[in-house]
Amino acid sequence: MQLNPTPTLHDIITARKIVYQYLKPTPLHYYSTLSELIGAKVWVKHENHHPVGAFKVRGGVNLAAHLSASEKAAGLYTASTGNHGQSIAFAARAYGIKATIAVPEGANPSKVKAMRRMGAEIIFHGKDFDTAREMIMTMAEEKGGKFIGPTEEALICGVGSYALEILDDLPDVEAIIVPVGGGSSASAAGIVCKSINEKIEVFGCQSAQAPSMQLSWKSGEIISAQMETFAEGVATRVPFPNTQRIMREHLDDFLLVDDNEIEESILLYLKHTHNLAEGAGAIPLATAIRYKERFRGKKIVLVLSGGNLNINKLRKIIAKYRGAHDIKLQ
Amino acid sequence: MQLNPTPTLHDIITARKIVYQYLKPTPLHYYSTLSELIGAKVWVKHENHHPVGAFKVRGGVNLAAHLSASEKAAGLYTASTGNHGQSIAFAARAYGIKATIAVPEGANPSKVKAMRRMGAEIIFHGKDFDTAREMIMTMAEEKGGKFIGPTEEALICGVGSYALEILDDLPDVEAIIVPVGGGSSASAAGIVCKSINEKIEVFGCQSAQAPSMQLSWKSGEIISAQMETFAEGVATRVPFPNTQRIMREHLDDFLLVDDNEIEESILLYLKHTHNLAEGAGAIPLATAIRYKERFRGKKIVLVLSGGNLNINKLRKIIAKYRGAHDIKLQ
Repeated sequence: MQLNPTPTLHDIITARKIVYQYLKPTPLHYYSTLSELIGAKVWVKHENHHPVGAFKVRGGVNLAAHLSASEKAAGLYTASTGNHGQSIAFAARAYGIKATIAVPEGANPSKVKAMRRMGAEIIFHGKDFDTAREMIMTMAEEKGGKFIGPTEEALICGVGSYALEILDDLPDVEAIIVPVGGGSSASAAGIVCKSINEKIEVFGCQSAQAPSMQLSWKSGEIISAQMETFAEGVATRVPFPNTQRIMREHLDDFLLVDDNEIEESILLYLKHTHNLAEGAGAIPLATAIRYKERFRGKKIVLVLSGGNLNINKLRKIIAKYRGAHDIKLQ
Repeated sequence: MQLNPTPTLHDIITARKIVYQYLKPTPLHYYSTLSELIGAKVWVKHENHHPVGAFKVRGGVNLAAHLSASEKAAGLYTASTGNHGQSIAFAARAYGIKATIAVPEGANPSKVKAMRRMGAEIIFHGKDFDTAREMIMTMAEEKGGKFIGPTEEALICGVGSYALEILDDLPDVEAIIVPVGGGSSASAAGIVCKSINEKIEVFGCQSAQAPSMQLSWKSGEIISAQMETFAEGVATRVPFPNTQRIMREHLDDFLLVDDNEIEESILLYLKHTHNLAEGAGAIPLATAIRYKERFRGKKIVLVLSGGNLNINKLRKIIAKYRGAHDIKLQ
């Protein structure tokens, strides 16, 4: 199947049927505590409740469903900091395809273990996603296999099912806040929301310690930037042109928060919702708190995109913020 | 509506329609890491993914649906260490009923806050559940309101929907391990499993630091026992005769684990599934590990009954087990 260069609402609705062969809708819960904290009516979309703990898996199963027999036989090659790789490993296992995944040295060990457990071959290479990506693209070409970029259209279409679910459950949502790593999730939310009701605001957000996608979005140019965030899910150094194009059309704004605000939001999620968020997953909460005047009184959805936080990192965060007056570990 | 003294499979199937007016099915996920650890095929039933973070809410909405107009007008009175109270508060708010809930002094503050936020009036009384219960029963009688015990038949019927979901998702499950506080969840699982396929084993489990329900089950007599567990969800001192009767008919065994094993299982859940379990919620995992020879090679389901762990308690557990060789906070 040839997908349109820019997926449409119809493409996303079509993909949803495939997604639901493997996955179930995730909950959208209202939290009165977070609502008081932000001064808005706050729902959380629990993408951390998926089997692999992150939204990406919706994309992988849709992509695998559209591979040709020869593509399946040749195997899949990709690079990932973790959740995209888990998605491809999950889908490859479901379809009996071999997956080879390059990860940066020092990648989140629990994500790497999870990929291996699903049968993927893991190659550690380079200091970040982009270095690993360059290596594996060359390898895929040499071996005749298909390289899967993390923002391919079939992935965006599959991922978009989460945005359809938000509108099913809360048709009068006024704003959705989405973390941006590669931008597939924000692109999908933008396409869905603006196609159905253009008044629904869609906000991208990222760590200020990895602002390449935000700088590119603001300027309209593809700008690489320093990448020093602990939140590997948004640790993008070289921006993705296809999602930039979609996001420039569909996002209302693109906001940055600092890593320390993200860490605090991990604790706030634990305290107020008893959910573990990974760094990327906590960014929308940090964004809603920092820019609360933008959301005052509105019905907003925070996309808790993933929960795959290393327990050792959690320990450090809890130790660091112990006693901070606005966290109060009670 | 008059419910049978012992609920039947039909009662539970009937209640499910009411439960789904307010709640959605929760996920049943397979975890290869836990499977390796236990030497079985291990699924987790994620009752921690409910809006109030625990299975109890299924019961509350079913109970409220069956109240008479005069019962609704007079209001509900109950006692709780937290999750049952949240369930009643959730249901009372949904039906516009006033709820008054007695909690023991020192009750989990996040559970108390959640009940208040849903509009319930909270009265602190006594050192444990049973002391609070005696007080509120007297108050209900004086005020002419309905006292709701935590193991009423309408609650068991609503709760039973989780067991139906397990059999829908995994019809060839061989054993289900359920934590016992009041016993509503284990009773419901017993009724469902033994009615559908009596070969499915159902195990109750509890903290050895609060063994009253287990001692009563083993002996056939109602035996009160010391209650010193940190896991308030299973902190039962005075056993409940109605669930004892059902559990004696339907449980295959009733196992105990120590509080320190429960704490370790909270960490194992965080590490391997990225889910926060409260003490009661982690008991089935601790049980499967301690008694692993009972489950070897089988398809088993651990009921993660709730996730409402206090973040300060989590901090202490992480600090206590840091470096323990079988946890390895990596």
